Amino acid sequence: MQNPIGELRIIDRIRARTSPSNAVRLGIGDDCAILKPPHGHELLVTTDFSLENRHFRRNWHSPASIGHRTLARGLSDLAAMGAKPLAAFLSLAMPKSIARNPRWLDGFLDGLLALAAAHNVPLAGGDTSQSPADVILADIILIGSAPAGRALRRFGAHPGDLLYCTGTLGGAAAELTALSANPRKFRTATSANEHPHLFPQPRLAVGQALLRRHLATACIDLSDGLSTDLAHLCTASNASAELDLAALPLHPLAATLDDRAQINALLHGGEDYELLFTAAPSTKIPRSIANVPITRIGCILKAQKNKPQMTLLSDNDRFELQPHGWEHFA
Amino acid sequence: MQNPIGELRIIDRIRARTSPSNAVRLGIGDDCAILKPPHGHELLVTTDFSLENRHFRRNWHSPASIGHRTLARGLSDLAAMGAKPLAAFLSLAMPKSIARNPRWLDGFLDGLLALAAAHNVPLAGGDTSQSPADVILADIILIGSAPAGRALRRFGAHPGDLLYCTGTLGGAAAELTALSANPRKFRTATSANEHPHLFPQPRLAVGQALLRRHLATACIDLSDGLSTDLAHLCTASNASAELDLAALPLHPLAATLDDRAQINALLHGGEDYELLFTAAPSTKIPRSIANVPITRIGCILKAQKNKPQMTLLSDNDRFELQPHGWEHFA
Repeated sequence: MQNPIGELRIIDRIRARTSPSNAVRLGIGDDCAILKPPHGHELLVTTDFSLENRHFRRNWHSPASIGHRTLARGLSDLAAMGAKPLAAFLSLAMPKSIARNPRWLDGFLDGLLALAAAHNVPLAGGDTSQSPADVILADIILIGSAPAGRALRRFGAHPGDLLYCTGTLGGAAAELTALSANPRKFRTATSANEHPHLFPQPRLAVGQALLRRHLATACIDLSDGLSTDLAHLCTASNASAELDLAALPLHPLAATLDDRAQINALLHGGEDYELLFTAAPSTKIPRSIANVPITRIGCILKAQKNKPQMTLLSDNDRFELQPHGWEHFA
Repeated sequence: MQNPIGELRIIDRIRARTSPSNAVRLGIGDDCAILKPPHGHELLVTTDFSLENRHFRRNWHSPASIGHRTLARGLSDLAAMGAKPLAAFLSLAMPKSIARNPRWLDGFLDGLLALAAAHNVPLAGGDTSQSPADVILADIILIGSAPAGRALRRFGAHPGDLLYCTGTLGGAAAELTALSANPRKFRTATSANEHPHLFPQPRLAVGQALLRRHLATACIDLSDGLSTDLAHLCTASNASAELDLAALPLHPLAATLDDRAQINALLHGGEDYELLFTAAPSTKIPRSIANVPITRIGCILKAQKNKPQMTLLSDNDRFELQPHGWEHFA
């Protein structure tokens, strides 16, 4: 067995694998990191926990998948607002058993830094600690920038606007179902192939294009599930929405599920990390943006008292749709 | 027993207690917060875990002390670089047992927000989750600003520079010793009285004055203990240092310890959150800055191969000083 490695050794290990960046004036190694924000831009900040047994399982997810997913959660929040990432910060606590064996840490960093490199995001700092329990604890902080006053927001959808989503839905939920049935099935999965749950792709280029080209009136990322995130968008915009079930773009993995599970994956399955956005009916939305297909899935209506906030159209019938996404402590 | 409270209710509870700020264009409630950095300034970013049983104990520390200490760790990192805080972000995971009873959360927020108000720092966002174990997990993120190129750094100390510290040393270690002997002793302690361990005071005004008045050549905060933090400063500055034991300003609480424990508290006791800085010998350093006493405690020497990095002067004798601060996994 190797000796336990100290906090400084872990930080050195992380630092050795980070590379310089224009936005980061000073990375790991002082009391704070120093960032140089672009002139005339605002900063966008988001923090997201990735906690073992809440967000991942050590015997289901490879270290690379955990690292990738940890960063993807934060990047997707920036994507939802059309921001460009400036830097990521990682707070990481590991149990002693893992700190003794740097292989897990190296695999985790492999996954995190590969996604960071794909989106040109430097890892600029963070914190390390020993975990107080036999669980791995990560908190990722993303800082991005957007031209002042231009960030995409959840509010801004108007009655008459059309509702769109990127990519396909239900893939992450379907892959998670397959993973739970056979945890060893995906041990060798990599981000090179499509793995919507294990290696989700945050839609940064789409979000940035929506902002740059003034296409969207409101935007949110699909992290908690379509029904929950659409409810957030409607509440923020003080509007209601109608979804067309037949229009929802089904991920091929979800197509193998039975009908009920398929609809659940589409409407309530979380962590697809696609974008959900609205656009004025007069705005021409391309069929794809940055090589990601865009699908029209419904429309925005006026909010009305005693009427459902969300309606689902299916086979010429109308159903009330309620948020059934994932809520902590629910 | 009350019903479990969901994530949104927890966020609402936090949001209800936050107040607007010039720097925060958008606080809690969208995918990211939006900050407006001051023109011509750089951003300073730091993240710090506060994990139950590593950084605090539920039966030793009141919720208010835990909240205060969580924020103080991050603020002290900003103080060390002379930065002005712009916003704080909190990632907080609680076990179900605590989420069921909002009293702990309210007490924690009381402590955190009182310190935030004292330093005019808005809480602008974060994340909440259920803890995967029966431990409370917090990660605090502080974002500050400093005029471009002006932040105080660990490097920059030159041979001949004099070494100073703020306030007194050993108080946090002494109070922690008293706390461990009688965990119930301080249950009613508040930040209104001096409690160097339970309610440490980050030295933001001093750090900002050192920067503004060009007084310091290098600076670090005393979080890990004088011997460890001085070693960081020496390594970053490629210098060595001589400490005068008799000059070290002893906290009154530490004066009650026996000789050996007193020296340990002074040299190796962490979490005093005072500032350690160097200044050119020609720079006139006031006896106090922002009402905090400043004490000269040693000097900077040239680094020499095969000579100790740190020397302790005591009773006309010289000793090699080694870092004995607190290191994770050590």
